Amino acid sequence: MLTMNNVAIIGVGHTKFGRLIDKGLMDLLCEASLEALDNSNTSEKDFNSVYVGAMSPGQFNQISGVASALVDRISLLPAAADHIKNGPASGGSAVKAGFQAIASGMSDLVLVVGGEKMTHITTPGAITTNVATITHHEAERRHGVSLPSLAGLLTRTYLEKYNAKLEWLSDIAIKNHKNGALNPVAHFQKTIDEFMESAIRKGKGNWDNIYDYLKNDKTNPIIADPLRLFHICPISDGAAALVLCKVEIAKQYCDTPILITGIGQATDTHIVHEREDLTVLKALRICSDQAYKMAKKSPEDIDVAELHDAFEILEAVESEDIGFFKKGEGAKAAHDGLTEIGGKIPINPSGGLKARGHPLGATGVAQVVELVWQLRGEAGKRQVAGAETGITCNFGGFGNNIISILVERM
Amino acid sequence: MLTMNNVAIIGVGHTKFGRLIDKGLMDLLCEASLEALDNSNTSEKDFNSVYVGAMSPGQFNQISGVASALVDRISLLPAAADHIKNGPASGGSAVKAGFQAIASGMSDLVLVVGGEKMTHITTPGAITTNVATITHHEAERRHGVSLPSLAGLLTRTYLEKYNAKLEWLSDIAIKNHKNGALNPVAHFQKTIDEFMESAIRKGKGNWDNIYDYLKNDKTNPIIADPLRLFHICPISDGAAALVLCKVEIAKQYCDTPILITGIGQATDTHIVHEREDLTVLKALRICSDQAYKMAKKSPEDIDVAELHDAFEILEAVESEDIGFFKKGEGAKAAHDGLTEIGGKIPINPSGGLKARGHPLGATGVAQVVELVWQLRGEAGKRQVAGAETGITCNFGGFGNNIISILVERM
Repeated sequence: MLTMNNVAIIGVGHTKFGRLIDKGLMDLLCEASLEALDNSNTSEKDFNSVYVGAMSPGQFNQISGVASALVDRISLLPAAADHIKNGPASGGSAVKAGFQAIASGMSDLVLVVGGEKMTHITTPGAITTNVATITHHEAERRHGVSLPSLAGLLTRTYLEKYNAKLEWLSDIAIKNHKNGALNPVAHFQKTIDEFMESAIRKGKGNWDNIYDYLKNDKTNPIIADPLRLFHICPISDGAAALVLCKVEIAKQYCDTPILITGIGQATDTHIVHEREDLTVLKALRICSDQAYKMAKKSPEDIDVAELHDAFEILEAVESEDIGFFKKGEGAKAAHDGLTEIGGKIPINPSGGLKARGHPLGATGVAQVVELVWQLRGEAGKRQVAGAETGITCNFGGFGNNIISILVERM
Repeated sequence: MLTMNNVAIIGVGHTKFGRLIDKGLMDLLCEASLEALDNSNTSEKDFNSVYVGAMSPGQFNQISGVASALVDRISLLPAAADHIKNGPASGGSAVKAGFQAIASGMSDLVLVVGGEKMTHITTPGAITTNVATITHHEAERRHGVSLPSLAGLLTRTYLEKYNAKLEWLSDIAIKNHKNGALNPVAHFQKTIDEFMESAIRKGKGNWDNIYDYLKNDKTNPIIADPLRLFHICPISDGAAALVLCKVEIAKQYCDTPILITGIGQATDTHIVHEREDLTVLKALRICSDQAYKMAKKSPEDIDVAELHDAFEILEAVESEDIGFFKKGEGAKAAHDGLTEIGGKIPINPSGGLKARGHPLGATGVAQVVELVWQLRGEAGKRQVAGAETGITCNFGGFGNNIISILVERM
């Protein structure tokens, strides 16, 4: 299962994430793609293939064939084009598809773009209902299960089993908003302290500290007990892109290529209650192990990680199953500051899904873009000093399809 | 762009295509997959990855994450799973993804499944409207363009430009129904003669010959002038599957592995009227050329072809642009019987999309399954004698994304 070829990242693009009312899906995909093309110094005619990761352009935007449409719009004809769909892990799957296109010898130069446009959908519950089509229909969905409800169950189980505190999950949100405030492309570039101060100024209440503010039902309502608004990522629009090439030609385009040296992907049971332990993401254990083995690295070698905190409980659990902390110690580690920029293992310096935002198909690509910026030393105020090796966790379904990508400086 | 690794096909599965009222999408994907697994003598635990090609399970079936759901249902956990979407060429794209997974060294054994479940959708126009999301919104769709209307335009242009006859396109349908009548998994296992005889028996009319029957507005109504019902493929349910492995281990599983030695894929302009010549499928010229070059073959080496006759005009045009006939001579060649089983180059011995049926995402995989049967000598009454080399054309969008796969006996 070891691949002989590494693949280099020679260009990145990333739109602002957020509620982008004046841009459609195709606009976002084009913007991120053209930025990555510029960033890589490539010429349009060199591209062999394009992979687009997006969860639901058919249902959200009434567009299919997004990949071939994009190839024409940005003048990459006649490059091959495919759309990769893997729920909220569509972006990670698209990166893997691009990697395999090159490692197989079928392509030399590949564009990978992830994107989603969702905030125009204002029918109450429409997005959550659409995303819930990932769950098992007979065993889960028809009983009303949605992703937030599964995350609520996971949180209760985790807190009880490991004697953890809900406030520690709030600490993850606080850290991610702090990081997001330093990220010019994040959906929310505001700390939770700033949200609180703004609420106080607007006369919505008065709080002595941030934890009291986060307990308030009006400013931080319960979404899926015990999870409140600030424990959950927003609905966002946006796109991110990578230019990949075979390692041999990377230096022709770019002084600081970043290598993809490990990729893993694994599937777990579709029905969540069939898992032996709800608090273990078995697919992540397997796929991160694959990525470490392929790259000949271990969790101790990682300098920075981008994990999939669609719900803040996920960052805690993922930080354990990807090998940074012992089982049950992830939330406490975040509370203790070990995952901050400058901590033992900085997690989500980008702000994560919580603050950077979560345009479904964009996320898996955006995670890699952030690692490229970190490894190139281009992450500005949120730079992890001396970062040379990074890893991602892109979480699809409710943990039944997870992808992990390991990148290194050349 | 030449790949160093070939990939072997060691197992095939194919559900009956048709109006399958008692089966859902997941049932169809499972059925084809399990048949392919049995056919390949593999063990569930050997699989590294699964690729599902399907156009619109989200919109047609309210299911997303089909690939990971399938992996769990057929006990291939923890194999990686991805859903590949490329309109009516989703199946071909999934085969290519499976090929690249193996050729890259990332997987040894891969399951590729294509499927679609559509006939339960009874809202008038709903399927055509969904498929029309492939067309260019601003330039085409908002003016009412659908795929049948583009096929009608192409037909008029072709008939005028090359002085061809509409009856020659009917000849393609007649041939494909004749072949389909010999294919136990075809949607229609009935010749057009039999349709006519049945109509006569039912007192719907009386005709001296099949061409008069095909000119009748009641038994063969105009769908998109000049195309009538029998010039157009049906809406079908079904699935088809392949087990792929690296060549080195193929003989462990199978006495008659079939090799994928060439794959090409190319994109053309999204807006059809931007093409220099409406009657030329430039993407097919490019992608079939890639496939021939990769396999070191030429059109003269091909013994049997499965082309994408969603509309019978397409089979004519494709038979030219894939290199079998000179431009403008494809329809005449079919009229002259050159594309029949036993002719110069048998096209669509399966019955093609016209008679085998066209469950969108299944088609690109089913084309390869038919070639495997032909190359193994397992095609029964529709066997092309001594077939050793075959090629496919899987047509996505309205020809803006085409894939060609070349297979050979080992």
